[in-house]
Amino acid sequence: MANHNRLTVKQVTPAYWHVSINNPPINLFDPEMFAEFNVLMDKIDGDKDIKIVVIESANPQYFIAHFDIVRGETIPDQPGAADFGAWPGFVTRLAESRVVSVAKLRGRARGHGSELALACDIRFASKEKAILSQPEVGVSVVPGGGATEWLPALVGRSRALEIFCGSDDFDADTAEKYGWVNRSIHDAQLDAFVDNFARRVSNFDKRALELAKKTVNARAGVPSEAERWGSNRAFVWTTTWPETQAKIGRLMGMGLQQDNDLELNFGKHIGLLID
Amino acid sequence: MANHNRLTVKQVTPAYWHVSINNPPINLFDPEMFAEFNVLMDKIDGDKDIKIVVIESANPQYFIAHFDIVRGETIPDQPGAADFGAWPGFVTRLAESRVVSVAKLRGRARGHGSELALACDIRFASKEKAILSQPEVGVSVVPGGGATEWLPALVGRSRALEIFCGSDDFDADTAEKYGWVNRSIHDAQLDAFVDNFARRVSNFDKRALELAKKTVNARAGVPSEAERWGSNRAFVWTTTWPETQAKIGRLMGMGLQQDNDLELNFGKHIGLLID
Amino acid sequence: MANHNRLTVKQVTPAYWHVSINNPPINLFDPEMFAEFNVLMDKIDGDKDIKIVVIESANPQYFIAHFDIVRGETIPDQPGAADFGAWPGFVTRLAESRVVSVAKLRGRARGHGSELALACDIRFASKEKAILSQPEVGVSVVPGGGATEWLPALVGRSRALEIFCGSDDFDADTAEKYGWVNRSIHDAQLDAFVDNFARRVSNFDKRALELAKKTVNARAGVPSEAERWGSNRAFVWTTTWPETQAKIGRLMGMGLQQDNDLELNFGKHIGLLID
Repeated sequence: MANHNRLTVKQVTPAYWHVSINNPPINLFDPEMFAEFNVLMDKIDGDKDIKIVVIESANPQYFIAHFDIVRGETIPDQPGAADFGAWPGFVTRLAESRVVSVAKLRGRARGHGSELALACDIRFASKEKAILSQPEVGVSVVPGGGATEWLPALVGRSRALEIFCGSDDFDADTAEKYGWVNRSIHDAQLDAFVDNFARRVSNFDKRALELAKKTVNARAGVPSEAERWGSNRAFVWTTTWPETQAKIGRLMGMGLQQDNDLELNFGKHIGLLID
Repeated sequence: MANHNRLTVKQVTPAYWHVSINNPPINLFDPEMFAEFNVLMDKIDGDKDIKIVVIESANPQYFIAHFDIVRGETIPDQPGAADFGAWPGFVTRLAESRVVSVAKLRGRARGHGSELALACDIRFASKEKAILSQPEVGVSVVPGGGATEWLPALVGRSRALEIFCGSDDFDADTAEKYGWVNRSIHDAQLDAFVDNFARRVSNFDKRALELAKKTVNARAGVPSEAERWGSNRAFVWTTTWPETQAKIGRLMGMGLQQDNDLELNFGKHIGLLID
Repeated sequence: MANHNRLTVKQVTPAYWHVSINNPPINLFDPEMFAEFNVLMDKIDGDKDIKIVVIESANPQYFIAHFDIVRGETIPDQPGAADFGAWPGFVTRLAESRVVSVAKLRGRARGHGSELALACDIRFASKEKAILSQPEVGVSVVPGGGATEWLPALVGRSRALEIFCGSDDFDADTAEKYGWVNRSIHDAQLDAFVDNFARRVSNFDKRALELAKKTVNARAGVPSEAERWGSNRAFVWTTTWPETQAKIGRLMGMGLQQDNDLELNFGKHIGLLID
């Protein structure tokens, strides 16, 4: 039986839930975490009182480092466990759910970490501590968890191409300027700001919130599960390329997925990795 | 016969018109104002020389406080009077008109006030004095005057959800960052900036202006009257909910629609109104 | 036989090409330059190693002043020469090419200069020295080289209308705020920043870059050649209007297309040109 404590879910009030992510040492998004998110989504959809959920990390250095590329295809024996091909369905479900979801970003949110944040309706980021990146192209793969759907709509074609093709780290101020996050907020004020926002929303009427969100979804458009599934399969396909296997092998040899400078400053390191 | 002086229309030059809104004490958008806007639109469409119109408020505290929720369904006996269901048609007409429309924003532009500004092609806001808000969800209704159509396109899905679900006040700098307004400009320079812009445009050739606007409309898309009509009906429907009636009743008891701190700082107050 | 040295193409590495534009005195976009861009595009598409191309100007005052309105319809006797009606096809080809294209902007990029920059995937601009403008409406024409397609998507309808109807000069910071350029970068750091970006990208795997760009294009949408051709024909049509001929005649008499204050500060001058 797998470990069930990647996510700690707390009901601040019946209408306002808080989720803390903790998967030491660097908060990799692994199959167990995915299983727990699926279980959480079932609880959210089955609950009659919830209006807003805030998702943050217990580790100030990492929101989520990235997808666990070693164990990504494992399907653990626990509730909610699913093949990674079920991820696009999860994202669509969260975006279309009546709950308002907020990602509070501290530390690194790279690859799948950025994509989990993008799957949330709203993103508030620590000006001093948040780092966002879609480093996939640098590792010879393409993003497959929703970034190619959400980012062009939020930041426009040219900035999306810069983000994907450059595979570099972005600080919160630049991410705010681009529209990748809603706001960059001084770290000392971030907790109070997000808590105040969540309490406001949780005091409003559920029917009005739900209708407002559905209307925005209808106008802004939520990428279809089919579109996301296409990117997701493209990502999986790129992992089979020989050049990708070679690059991942080199990075694993350098200490990828461990708590070290390679993970802390991945944007810098991937730019220096010359064939 | 109703009062006909909500709007003062001045022809600065034959090509450059100026409209001042004045409906003391807080510039509510009431049926008489709507009637006068319809008459103005007839004049604009019938004129051969107009190229640009600037709309501002005579009241530095309020661009337009919001829709008059007490008298909203009244149809006054005066030219241009129409049911509120005609509002989406007005917005579409203004957006598709060959005139370039500019909102100069000082003071509060909440709810319908923001929507009138959004109906204008261009918005320039006072850095120190403009306040924008879509507070509908906080009052247990949904926006019904175009905000749900314009804002997702201008600010993206995530910021639109923050604006609608949070129902809070936004200053001009944040509104500029989000794309809600074109520019946030120091109050001392706002009048000269807008006047200079309007005079420039009014010196250019009418056919080139018209073709440029039509081309942008074709590429960017103008929300259809049908889409807006859908949101408009949703708004009207939400006003009939018991929870909405109860909330509006409480707010009226607290002094809504009067010149007081509730209206000045509505964003703060609506967040404190706990059921 | 026409002069063949508007463009100097240098292979910094086989994967990273650099193009310098030089057409004294003010870098007009003339038919010879278009011919050389067509030849460059053939070389890029035929090359197996190129991943990224950086385009800049040899003249720090002018990226490209604008389209050569005197010689625009000439078709020179040289490789790549084509009618201006072939421009939309060039833009579509560059946008859909697997090469990542970057415009490094110093000096004035007005009209066709802005449109060449918009045709590139990514734009980095000198904070102190870049000036962008779509001054067409001020000259009684409409943009016909892609600006009406790219800008509404990048900056939204309201800012696109401000840019086109105002026909004024924009500095790099405002262009960054609007999304017209990716970033405004201090001039002293611009060369190093762009070179670092290009080297990073040129170290990544070609297949991943190509798939990422194709995916972004599919999601963000590349304006069709047909849409651009429509605007292009509208531009050509507007040049035949009597009011346009009169305005261009006056501007030519004032020294248009020469190295003088009219070209340096065109945004100011066009606003003062009263019929």
